[in-house]
Amino acid sequence: MADIDRILDHIDNHQTEARARLCDLLRIPSISAQPDHAADCANAAEWVRGQLAGLGFATSVRPTAGHPVVLGHHPGPGGDVPHLLFYGHYDVQPPDPLELWTSPPFEPALVEGPHGPRLVARGAVDDKGQTMMWLEAFRAWQAVGGGLPVRVTVLVEGEEEVGSPSLAAFLDANRGELGADVVVISDTGMWDIDTPAITTRLRGSTYVEIGLRLAERDMHSGLFGGSAQNAANVLTRILGGLHDAGGGVALPGFYDGILPPSPAVLAQWAALGFDEAAFLGTVGLRTPAGERDRPALERLWARPTADITGIWSGYTGPGAKTVIPAEAHAKVSFRLVPGQDPDAVLASLERFVAARLPPEAQVRYDKLFRGRGLEIPADSFWVNAATRVLHDEYGRTPVLMGSGGSIPVVEMMKTVLGLDSLLVGFGLNDDQVHSPNEKFEMRCFHKGSRSHVRLLAALAAGR
Amino acid sequence: MADIDRILDHIDNHQTEARARLCDLLRIPSISAQPDHAADCANAAEWVRGQLAGLGFATSVRPTAGHPVVLGHHPGPGGDVPHLLFYGHYDVQPPDPLELWTSPPFEPALVEGPHGPRLVARGAVDDKGQTMMWLEAFRAWQAVGGGLPVRVTVLVEGEEEVGSPSLAAFLDANRGELGADVVVISDTGMWDIDTPAITTRLRGSTYVEIGLRLAERDMHSGLFGGSAQNAANVLTRILGGLHDAGGGVALPGFYDGILPPSPAVLAQWAALGFDEAAFLGTVGLRTPAGERDRPALERLWARPTADITGIWSGYTGPGAKTVIPAEAHAKVSFRLVPGQDPDAVLASLERFVAARLPPEAQVRYDKLFRGRGLEIPADSFWVNAATRVLHDEYGRTPVLMGSGGSIPVVEMMKTVLGLDSLLVGFGLNDDQVHSPNEKFEMRCFHKGSRSHVRLLAALAAGR
Repeated sequence: MADIDRILDHIDNHQTEARARLCDLLRIPSISAQPDHAADCANAAEWVRGQLAGLGFATSVRPTAGHPVVLGHHPGPGGDVPHLLFYGHYDVQPPDPLELWTSPPFEPALVEGPHGPRLVARGAVDDKGQTMMWLEAFRAWQAVGGGLPVRVTVLVEGEEEVGSPSLAAFLDANRGELGADVVVISDTGMWDIDTPAITTRLRGSTYVEIGLRLAERDMHSGLFGGSAQNAANVLTRILGGLHDAGGGVALPGFYDGILPPSPAVLAQWAALGFDEAAFLGTVGLRTPAGERDRPALERLWARPTADITGIWSGYTGPGAKTVIPAEAHAKVSFRLVPGQDPDAVLASLERFVAARLPPEAQVRYDKLFRGRGLEIPADSFWVNAATRVLHDEYGRTPVLMGSGGSIPVVEMMKTVLGLDSLLVGFGLNDDQVHSPNEKFEMRCFHKGSRSHVRLLAALAAGR
Repeated sequence: MADIDRILDHIDNHQTEARARLCDLLRIPSISAQPDHAADCANAAEWVRGQLAGLGFATSVRPTAGHPVVLGHHPGPGGDVPHLLFYGHYDVQPPDPLELWTSPPFEPALVEGPHGPRLVARGAVDDKGQTMMWLEAFRAWQAVGGGLPVRVTVLVEGEEEVGSPSLAAFLDANRGELGADVVVISDTGMWDIDTPAITTRLRGSTYVEIGLRLAERDMHSGLFGGSAQNAANVLTRILGGLHDAGGGVALPGFYDGILPPSPAVLAQWAALGFDEAAFLGTVGLRTPAGERDRPALERLWARPTADITGIWSGYTGPGAKTVIPAEAHAKVSFRLVPGQDPDAVLASLERFVAARLPPEAQVRYDKLFRGRGLEIPADSFWVNAATRVLHDEYGRTPVLMGSGGSIPVVEMMKTVLGLDSLLVGFGLNDDQVHSPNEKFEMRCFHKGSRSHVRLLAALAAGR
């Protein structure tokens, strides 16, 4: 067995170079949602491929219907060692609104925060920083540990932020190359900066863009007001009724079939003493939204939601235009929990909208993605090994958390490849994921890299 | 007295040149709402000034806090002739959405329609075309009528489409120069292409932009969904409640104090046999909006409305962004009728919104304009003279109409200068005012110019 302390020392002594490599990747504006950034996505894929090749992986960049997938294979030491499939994504969310960033989103800035230095950039934590942690762990094992102690396959995709539309087909087409014992993913968070976590429950998500057309053209609000249907009025009225007076979602059947967490899990969450006021305070809010009769962690981790993520209609430029809009558009994101069927939710939404429209209305639905909520077995070898490793690194037992966010890939890995995922992530709640000034604490990056060094050793020890 | 027929012949024989002059003005993109078109507004003002100077007016272009005002003075024949103040505006609405235009909005296109040739361009009828009608009438009188038969002052402003914010102060500061017996305005419509109209009732308007801020930044809808207030959800819920189940406006006190039209006027309107289905059919609609228990013309001309003219929040680009928006914005236009107080309506809106917000919400109101609804005395010398003139030109008695649109200048002329307005306009319902493919029928332009020739003669005959 390699000397773990030497490998951890190597991580400790090469943080400057590790940060510089992360910054190289962060400078590539690989925004998967925006077609004019397709070349940047390809550049990011090639950059990751180059890193893996430098670490002795057999690599390729594979085309998909969307942005390419990076694959890497390393045989490890040979013999009967576990085979781990590491998953990450090189794509990032759009950075807008740009004017709220304190530094340009694709020019990473190292700034001092209360926990020491942090990197501010789009993708700093989600997921470029978290992906680079395990890549740095590979590097340290290669440099001073005598090589990787397990067989490793790496898959880094470029469409996670748009719902991984090409991934399931890719996994299916390449299943022969993707056999493994377990998937390791760092795209989740810690409980707090001192308390590590393993995520064992994930909300699903379904996302739909609604386009409503009423009149053939925009109309003068004086000449037509009082007679003509206004698409902005109509869509606002319908979406304004998405929630009931208790803060729940008003779509008929929305809560049908939900599988609640076990009483034991709910008790564990209650014992965490989650401070919702402090959580909301990080974004300047005080009044909780959502179902009034549920505890905060249950609302965040185990109850479904409906959020308008975008709405636009009519004249949105400076000054006044007295127009009755002919069209109105909205994007709606539903967060789903185990037991809910994304297609049933979308069908209920369509019925809800149709029942509230004038007969001449035309509605178009773009269903941008859908993924079920998921629960991961918490008593496996993998979760137990990760629990020990995180305790060794942090001196605390990791929290088995739920996550409000969706990682559709976890469902795909299970459905297509039959693989469970081990979700060990090092983000913090205030990392501004998907928001201006996204950041990653360098303490998290450092200890996350060390944790991955330890995890490789622990998993190599056997199943 | 001049030979009217000779002057009318002059109009008939110079339509080509008159259209060419109108096209020159239409090519100037004088969009008052957009600051980057300020120079175009100044150019349009100078173009109008040049036309008036060529007709023997003493002219000036006067600065205001916004876009300039064009003034022109012509003494007429001298002696005890009436003094008319002609009002028009050289500014136009923004042309967007550009992709719906069949030809570029500022490259006027002469196309054949069911009523003969029409000009398609932004401002074709509102108000460049209607302004040029009386200017062409002046030209004909100067050419073959021995000069203008009345004293004329001309005021052409450049901020009508943004609510004439500088006009009241301008009228007040220049009242010594603006004394007249009556204001003549062509910025309204006919009943149909064969039936002229005089507008004696105008809705007012108040227009407000609402900016709602909840969180300090946009949030990830997975991490925060179920706990964080969503500005798009909240604003949509509030504005979705602006109307009640009967189609009326739900703001408390909204209908207080309304002065209804007289039973005689309502009976006259009922006798017009207005075909709402055909009216809505011109824009591809079938289902009437507004108060269910009111006839269509009353809803359009004598009942107030609330229309969302623009709404925007969150991510509105291509694809999916799973964000909870921190901000949401809307523009709301209220059409008001005589007896309603615009300030009371805005105050009621503010209370309505405030009662439905979480306490940490910040709301900003930009009150872009406000004008009361107005009724014009229908039995004056001016209205009676116009009635005779229009009958002579069209062979039909003009309809005394209401108008759903606001002309705040009519109220300002009354309030600041003490002047009544005579509203004789030649637009049609399907002119696509404020919409893509705005057009003006050249038959309306021609007969409108002839009507103004006749009107000058009739008004010159005495008060």
